Amino acid sequence: MISESDILDCFQHLVKDVSDDVILVGSGDDAAVVKAQEKDLVHSLDISKVGTHFPEDSPAEDIAYRSVAVALSDLAAMGAYPSFISIGLTANITEISWYKNFTKGIEKILNEYQIKLIGGDVTFGEINICVNVFGYPYDKIITRSGAKINDSVFLTGPLGKGRKGLMDWKTNKKSSYVSTFFNPIAQFINSEKIVKYATSCIDISDGLVKDLGSICKLSGAGADINVDMIKITHDIDDVCYGDDYVLCFTCNKKHDDLAEEQGFIKIGFITDKVGKVEFKKN
Amino acid sequence: MISESDILDCFQHLVKDVSDDVILVGSGDDAAVVKAQEKDLVHSLDISKVGTHFPEDSPAEDIAYRSVAVALSDLAAMGAYPSFISIGLTANITEISWYKNFTKGIEKILNEYQIKLIGGDVTFGEINICVNVFGYPYDKIITRSGAKINDSVFLTGPLGKGRKGLMDWKTNKKSSYVSTFFNPIAQFINSEKIVKYATSCIDISDGLVKDLGSICKLSGAGADINVDMIKITHDIDDVCYGDDYVLCFTCNKKHDDLAEEQGFIKIGFITDKVGKVEFKKN
Repeated sequence: MISESDILDCFQHLVKDVSDDVILVGSGDDAAVVKAQEKDLVHSLDISKVGTHFPEDSPAEDIAYRSVAVALSDLAAMGAYPSFISIGLTANITEISWYKNFTKGIEKILNEYQIKLIGGDVTFGEINICVNVFGYPYDKIITRSGAKINDSVFLTGPLGKGRKGLMDWKTNKKSSYVSTFFNPIAQFINSEKIVKYATSCIDISDGLVKDLGSICKLSGAGADINVDMIKITHDIDDVCYGDDYVLCFTCNKKHDDLAEEQGFIKIGFITDKVGKVEFKKN
Repeated sequence: MISESDILDCFQHLVKDVSDDVILVGSGDDAAVVKAQEKDLVHSLDISKVGTHFPEDSPAEDIAYRSVAVALSDLAAMGAYPSFISIGLTANITEISWYKNFTKGIEKILNEYQIKLIGGDVTFGEINICVNVFGYPYDKIITRSGAKINDSVFLTGPLGKGRKGLMDWKTNKKSSYVSTFFNPIAQFINSEKIVKYATSCIDISDGLVKDLGSICKLSGAGADINVDMIKITHDIDDVCYGDDYVLCFTCNKKHDDLAEEQGFIKIGFITDKVGKVEFKKN
């Protein structure tokens, strides 16, 4: 039987030299200490469960990577860049190789986003990964509640790639979409591009219908969406499905040209029909 | 079947008015935003699992309270006071009353420590509570690694109360110890008292033997402990058992009188026998 300490050893190389000008005390003590910054701190957490958020037989490295990526995506949706994370890992796996592969996935994403793991906790039980992400605003924070009537609604990319990836993986089909599902990209590059002019923003984790609904609800507004403008990958259900992690944002019409130059796709506009998101075809 | 949204509704009253001069954006958005502070941020997380950290049939209110209390205890052990928390709750309970009782426990501890809940995530599965705690140093941070040879070793209270409480609860015995198990007190008052002179500190969550061992290991030292000086509640096994959340700290001998005046119990001293914690009887 492996012990909690054996599992912690797998993470050791990721946290041992974490101290720098931001992280004063990393893992190994009762708590981590983050140096006072002049910027506001942005924090979110996401629980990922195998069986719910991943197929049961997902590779440990992908489970780790995706758990962190989807949590980071929430920072991008706020107009914040990532700085550090902490992880609460529950798992009932008895092979140490699983944990080694898990930490490979963590290491991969720490390197890709140049962020640090500052602490965590491990315990035994049904696989459950609670990822805490921390970052700082690029400029102003973009909330869900700032959409104004007549604002344009944009997507930063097509919908359905994650869904297609999961379908392909389940049917053993090798396709580039599979890595889109397991290794989604948190859209910090796009977040930084829109931060100065977006009035509201959300990442598409639960599907456009629900997520844009959240912007409308919190902004006290509605939206008219032209379905034909949405780039879909598989079929129309892509509009309801999540797992994409592209950003949906709103902005004043005067920024339409800039947003389109930046490669974003205008799909509709904000209305005064509070709470109503209407999808229309040409 | 209750939905994720039904569960989130139970938490709504705890997070709706959270915004103030520290918390700029509370729950309900992609992330929470904490105003830049002049103090370093101290962060820890703890996973509590029913079956591992609680008996299966523990009341929801107590599960909630204890999950947060044991996480807060890590801040006390660092010489930090608590400011806000976030919670990742996984549960497979289908009665909404369970979640209402859970939030009662959260509300109780938020009020007692005057802290805020700034966000979280909920999902379905085996009960698993990941509590993230955040605070700021009273003065300097007290790490586990600062113990010096010949420093005195102190405990801030007796050992074994939590263990006795769990034993009493399991045998349906009504005693004041039961609430010590379910509602442990994170020792911020003592933390503030010792922060100026303690050289190292840890909370007794895993048992004195293991926890003092961690101070010794990280400080490159050992310890000689006089078992007769430890106030035990049930029997000698209290020394190995955790769930107490009293603090074990070290300090230069010149502060012995002050520490004893403050009500703390000297149990031994730090030695140069690296990694060796020796327990002796008179």
